[in-house]
Amino acid sequence: MTAFITAPVASADAFKDLVAKIEATNGYRKPIGFGICRVEKGQMDAQKILTCTYPVINWGENFGSAAVFLAAAGLVERTNEQELVAPLTLDFLAQAMDAFAPYVTEAQGEKHRNVQVVQSLQTLIKGGKASADDFRVVFLFEDKPPQTVPGIYLKLMALSSGKAPLRGLNLEGVFGKLENVAWAGHKPYELAWLRAHEIDMKLAGTYPAIEYVDKFPRYLMHVIPVDNTRILDGSKVRFGAQLAAGTTVMPGASYINFNAGTLGPAMVEGRISSSAIVGANSDVGGGASILGVLSGGNAIPISVGEKCLLGANSVTGIPLGHGCIVDAGVSVLAGTRVFLADSAVADVAAANPGWDLKTMAVKHHADLKMHEFKAASLTHGNGLHFRVDSGTGRMMISRSKREIPLNAELHQAKPKVA
Amino acid sequence: MTAFITAPVASADAFKDLVAKIEATNGYRKPIGFGICRVEKGQMDAQKILTCTYPVINWGENFGSAAVFLAAAGLVERTNEQELVAPLTLDFLAQAMDAFAPYVTEAQGEKHRNVQVVQSLQTLIKGGKASADDFRVVFLFEDKPPQTVPGIYLKLMALSSGKAPLRGLNLEGVFGKLENVAWAGHKPYELAWLRAHEIDMKLAGTYPAIEYVDKFPRYLMHVIPVDNTRILDGSKVRFGAQLAAGTTVMPGASYINFNAGTLGPAMVEGRISSSAIVGANSDVGGGASILGVLSGGNAIPISVGEKCLLGANSVTGIPLGHGCIVDAGVSVLAGTRVFLADSAVADVAAANPGWDLKTMAVKHHADLKMHEFKAASLTHGNGLHFRVDSGTGRMMISRSKREIPLNAELHQAKPKVA
Amino acid sequence: MTAFITAPVASADAFKDLVAKIEATNGYRKPIGFGICRVEKGQMDAQKILTCTYPVINWGENFGSAAVFLAAAGLVERTNEQELVAPLTLDFLAQAMDAFAPYVTEAQGEKHRNVQVVQSLQTLIKGGKASADDFRVVFLFEDKPPQTVPGIYLKLMALSSGKAPLRGLNLEGVFGKLENVAWAGHKPYELAWLRAHEIDMKLAGTYPAIEYVDKFPRYLMHVIPVDNTRILDGSKVRFGAQLAAGTTVMPGASYINFNAGTLGPAMVEGRISSSAIVGANSDVGGGASILGVLSGGNAIPISVGEKCLLGANSVTGIPLGHGCIVDAGVSVLAGTRVFLADSAVADVAAANPGWDLKTMAVKHHADLKMHEFKAASLTHGNGLHFRVDSGTGRMMISRSKREIPLNAELHQAKPKVA
Repeated sequence: MTAFITAPVASADAFKDLVAKIEATNGYRKPIGFGICRVEKGQMDAQKILTCTYPVINWGENFGSAAVFLAAAGLVERTNEQELVAPLTLDFLAQAMDAFAPYVTEAQGEKHRNVQVVQSLQTLIKGGKASADDFRVVFLFEDKPPQTVPGIYLKLMALSSGKAPLRGLNLEGVFGKLENVAWAGHKPYELAWLRAHEIDMKLAGTYPAIEYVDKFPRYLMHVIPVDNTRILDGSKVRFGAQLAAGTTVMPGASYINFNAGTLGPAMVEGRISSSAIVGANSDVGGGASILGVLSGGNAIPISVGEKCLLGANSVTGIPLGHGCIVDAGVSVLAGTRVFLADSAVADVAAANPGWDLKTMAVKHHADLKMHEFKAASLTHGNGLHFRVDSGTGRMMISRSKREIPLNAELHQAKPKVA
Repeated sequence: MTAFITAPVASADAFKDLVAKIEATNGYRKPIGFGICRVEKGQMDAQKILTCTYPVINWGENFGSAAVFLAAAGLVERTNEQELVAPLTLDFLAQAMDAFAPYVTEAQGEKHRNVQVVQSLQTLIKGGKASADDFRVVFLFEDKPPQTVPGIYLKLMALSSGKAPLRGLNLEGVFGKLENVAWAGHKPYELAWLRAHEIDMKLAGTYPAIEYVDKFPRYLMHVIPVDNTRILDGSKVRFGAQLAAGTTVMPGASYINFNAGTLGPAMVEGRISSSAIVGANSDVGGGASILGVLSGGNAIPISVGEKCLLGANSVTGIPLGHGCIVDAGVSVLAGTRVFLADSAVADVAAANPGWDLKTMAVKHHADLKMHEFKAASLTHGNGLHFRVDSGTGRMMISRSKREIPLNAELHQAKPKVA
Repeated sequence: MTAFITAPVASADAFKDLVAKIEATNGYRKPIGFGICRVEKGQMDAQKILTCTYPVINWGENFGSAAVFLAAAGLVERTNEQELVAPLTLDFLAQAMDAFAPYVTEAQGEKHRNVQVVQSLQTLIKGGKASADDFRVVFLFEDKPPQTVPGIYLKLMALSSGKAPLRGLNLEGVFGKLENVAWAGHKPYELAWLRAHEIDMKLAGTYPAIEYVDKFPRYLMHVIPVDNTRILDGSKVRFGAQLAAGTTVMPGASYINFNAGTLGPAMVEGRISSSAIVGANSDVGGGASILGVLSGGNAIPISVGEKCLLGANSVTGIPLGHGCIVDAGVSVLAGTRVFLADSAVADVAAANPGWDLKTMAVKHHADLKMHEFKAASLTHGNGLHFRVDSGTGRMMISRSKREIPLNAELHQAKPKVA
């Protein structure tokens, strides 16, 4: 194991040289993500990590700090592995401080946050306020199914911080690797430990005020929203969700699962299931449901484009383009029959260049002067207004009056990352 | 500035004389509302008031106390202003105690609550348990857009305490004036402060357990419900909502926004959007949505009358009179087509004196023996039962079997204050 | 009053003799349930029990411990009463310890939990960490309307622990006997006490962070779920609900009321109203409502069988058998008209031996080649798929593709206990 850091680095240039030397190591790979986290361990099984907290994560960035952390942890030769979780040691901190010496004085606010982490750790541990074993140094080199709790939390934080795109990370198997725990005031308790102490704690009146039981923590435990983002009930957003600036999540019937969320300002009063994505300036009405891949066995993740309106208690089971409306109480599932008046064909076609509506139709009803479609065939359609004619019970589509963003193709109606 | 209070007031009559003297000041206006609040200031910006707590508010009442507070604060000559927020000083307290001297011994329980406030403040501040700067003396003289956080909270408290009628106050611009903050155990944190301390707090394990992020606090932070009112999840009722005695709010999909609520006993398992009002003995079923003026651009605030039943997952987008039913899963929007069988016209007409149903109808379908209406034309109708015929998909109305209160016109189906 | 326990019991055989002697008392009845609870008393009315916590309950079991507790409490002659709530005394503890002497050393983990309770109480009280008056010894001898708060909590705990079957207990009158209180961190406050101290606490900044106001506590305050059960928001499950292992309760629009719940693994994203029961491997979709007997005046409690899927925002108002589907957004109420194509009659009949569909039908529509039914007539049907044809607005049933468990008759589609 090469010792790369043997004395305080004298200058920014010297720092660059150090990083270059580390990165020149044979087989060295830059991590896709890394960070230092505080770990919360089991009350009963002190070896088991229940949860992790990253004050700062790095995702496809800050490779200089990555090189330093790998060198300080003695892991430069092990970057061929998928995932590394190293103990934090006093030696690690000393080496990292030496390497970061040129940046220490200016490490404040948004600048050099990894340096701030190392400084803060030194203060805490030297001051006896924390033990080195409360922390881990974590690196991911490949986007494969994460193997450890710190690895999973790093990915969830990458999603929730907006550094990784929704649906952009491999999260296979996370349910199997996270411990189901009881949370009180954001502190996780092992269920087995609660059971073991149930009698004593309940009689003494010291049983913790458990708020929820889940494998995942909540978004607000880890993420500080931007100033114009509001989450009126923290239970409504799981860690791993992503909320763009200007998103408001109301407390009625809303929920945003992990690996789901919004790409721009949005009003969310309904459910955004895992893997579902909502575009900017869209409105998910009270109780509206956007179905996910976890429920119903649907394999196509659902996107809702920009400037859409999903009415109260509507259900959206197909991906929608921009400027769509699903009326209150209307359910659009893949197999739903929908009808388009002949007189409205041109308007809908205009909003969807490339669509040949006559070919896409299941059939034409001459008596009704309508084409009939299977809803799934209208996937990613723009400017569609779905409503039920309450005179006939027929589900109609027409051209919605909502604006369709000009640069629609730049946005994620059809996200590239699936 | 006249000194009105120079010695302890000797008797109730002398108190009346003092008040009369203050009120006789040239240009003096009685405030529409006033109170003393505790303020919570920014962790970072100590000048910024994040939130206020009023133990007692006065709304169109207790003008004697108002006069005393204005005199003690040296503001008698400034009642021509719209809104006054004054510091609390030891001198203010001393003068107020002098003025209230005749009432001090009997100020207990429900009696002389403003006097109790002054007494309690003296005890707290003299005992070193609080500083005078933790408090403000607040007066509103006109119902215009509130200008300050204490002014906004005074109005929200007037609504939530039931002292001001729903839709009765000017709340224009409150979103712009309230700070978006993170709440933990009812304590507000500036988001910028959390950001500034994120690294240290997360590493030390002292990051607060944030429960929600919003500009508004929750109703239960400020209001003690009457004995037969229940709120099964505090996140479901925003401060500024009003709940009449006997209201139950269930935790499923319910939500009551500010400036919305109930006028009598009610079961609420659905959403009452901002500006929506529900009458006595009505039932808002699980997941039912009453649309608001904030969503959908609808400009007509929606009332639901007395003894109505909004079925599970129904959507109500028009104002309803008394004794109405919207069946489970049915959405009634302004433009919805609804049908009335010829045979049911007389019954519906009987419940709605003054309605000429034939004229109100869009057309008559001779083949169906039905009149067709636009739902909006049935606004404030009594005894309407909306259901969808699951044989035809047609939305029907008929006379509901629900009782219509005899004194319907006395109640707020068409509230005067809009 | 006979003194049954006068010295430490020497052996397990001697313990059996002691129990036999107690049980031989003339008129002695074994309790149907018993336990020792910690009580939380009113801040204002110290005689009023607001809430109880049972670390261990016994329900139709552990009659030896019951006999010992009754003897130690001097109540052996009073088992003819319906309900007994006795004070806990040092003498009670001493006698119980004497009686349990043969089991003291092995009382750990899942073994001899009543003995553990007595041991823990001795330690707490002798150590000055609790007072004997903080506890009560509670016995129920008959399943009649519970008369006391400890009696009610014993029954709710019997339901929530799964020891008593859902709908299996008489809970008449519990709303009248439970105090409506404000809960903060699982601590109950009398509303009157909050009112009496409102001014002082609000000014001092010590007003408690009230989370909800209800007569019932939450499930997670009393029950530790099994390892594969998850409740993502504790406000969503009331104490008295029952959740089988493998149940997940999502935080969107879900709610499980008391005396309602699941019989096997289930995904719950909707509402399970009081008295409603969901079978194993069923999925209650986002916002789906299962109506209860408390709402709508419906007197038939609703069961949903195994392997059912209630789609997002659906409403189920009739009991369903196994393998049923209610499509997203579809509302099936007792009076709903539903249609079955002639071509599908055989398939539906095959899943429901004993059904004569032609007789059950309201009528046959020759033009449509469909039978029409009233939904209520299909109560407890298996393999039914309810959907609305969005071409005609007609609600159709067909044979769902979901598997119907072979041993369907062994399960609780038609629960015996009503």
